[in-house]
Amino acid sequence: VLCAKGIEQSTGRLQTEVAAEAVPGIVAAVLSGPSFAADVVRGLPTALTLAAADPDLGRRLADTLSDRRFRLYWSDDLTGVQLGGAVKNVLAIAAGILDGRQLGASALAALVTRGFAELRRFAQALGGRPETLMGLSGLGDLMLTCGSPLSRNMSLGRALGRGESLEAVLGGRRSVSEGIYTAGIVARLAAERRLDMPIATAVAAIVAGELGVDAAIEGLLARPLKAED
Amino acid sequence: VLCAKGIEQSTGRLQTEVAAEAVPGIVAAVLSGPSFAADVVRGLPTALTLAAADPDLGRRLADTLSDRRFRLYWSDDLTGVQLGGAVKNVLAIAAGILDGRQLGASALAALVTRGFAELRRFAQALGGRPETLMGLSGLGDLMLTCGSPLSRNMSLGRALGRGESLEAVLGGRRSVSEGIYTAGIVARLAAERRLDMPIATAVAAIVAGELGVDAAIEGLLARPLKAED
Repeated sequence: VLCAKGIEQSTGRLQTEVAAEAVPGIVAAVLSGPSFAADVVRGLPTALTLAAADPDLGRRLADTLSDRRFRLYWSDDLTGVQLGGAVKNVLAIAAGILDGRQLGASALAALVTRGFAELRRFAQALGGRPETLMGLSGLGDLMLTCGSPLSRNMSLGRALGRGESLEAVLGGRRSVSEGIYTAGIVARLAAERRLDMPIATAVAAIVAGELGVDAAIEGLLARPLKAED
Repeated sequence: VLCAKGIEQSTGRLQTEVAAEAVPGIVAAVLSGPSFAADVVRGLPTALTLAAADPDLGRRLADTLSDRRFRLYWSDDLTGVQLGGAVKNVLAIAAGILDGRQLGASALAALVTRGFAELRRFAQALGGRPETLMGLSGLGDLMLTCGSPLSRNMSLGRALGRGESLEAVLGGRRSVSEGIYTAGIVARLAAERRLDMPIATAVAAIVAGELGVDAAIEGLLARPLKAED
């Protein structure tokens, strides 16, 4: 059961695809969803998605690993679950930047809403199912990650938003902010498919040192008004 | 341009319907979305939905009322925009209850995710469009309202979650928590249509004094595990 999140930078492959190549014959499932380790350890209620290609295996794993406070819902959408978890880390960096710049809770909610539209557009283009992205491993994890300074990716974004350099932030941490590694490959895969992903693309450019935080924010605010959908 | 949120308790009608009856010939638009008044007054960036039945009017109102920091996206889905704004106030009470009981950020994210599924189910059954509910007036406002103690409905829920009685909470406030008045009619309309809305129904029962907070939480956690979608 794979619990990390990300997309292979050189190939754009998902972890289950990498695992299948590295360990021939492996049957990999994926566990993803809104669950700070601190909450799980304290026995607070959590609900996550357990994805396996074989629905019977998914159900069996969910039954075995669940208890009353740690509830797993099963799914057979390995692609949607993995892409949701990977992309939300990129969006969390953007959310952290807004928060670090003290732009307010209303702006943050708007950013996450528009970011979620990017996440859905991206994951569906790559084969994920819409319902998966609306679920715990998609929207649920996005809300948790973008709503709490406990999140590693959001706290990294906050430091950038406060004006610290990426080098300084990374030098001072031992934890991994997976979104840094995911941003570039998400932007590249989106560009190849001509998907409109202004937020994820801005994060990729900031992380690559090609765009300043203020210029990124101004660029997003300067987009023309339009119909909402 | 109507800015309040709710559903007429005795009839289940939307505000635009009530306005059309009260003021024959009126052309009512609706403004809704994630925007704490305090953020707007301080000139922080906000993005909202402006709905009007006539798309040209919607576009003209959005152009006229927007500036660089207060951005309106237009829509012609009056039903979806009004239902999203009304139901999110009910869900915010539930979010506040979890928060007041200190059940953790992971549980809160799961609750809001499942609550958003209820909101979509309800609004679509009553004629709202799915894309509207995924937008600023639906998901965006839900995230803001359920993510911040500044929200009136969430703070009312927090007081209930900490064990205060509804009478005591209401007696101590001058502001209106619209979700209290919306919960009952949402639960009734959902029951009439046989829509599964366990969270909104629990809030309605709590607000009506028919269900205790602990029993409501236990009831939600005791639901059987299942496939996610």
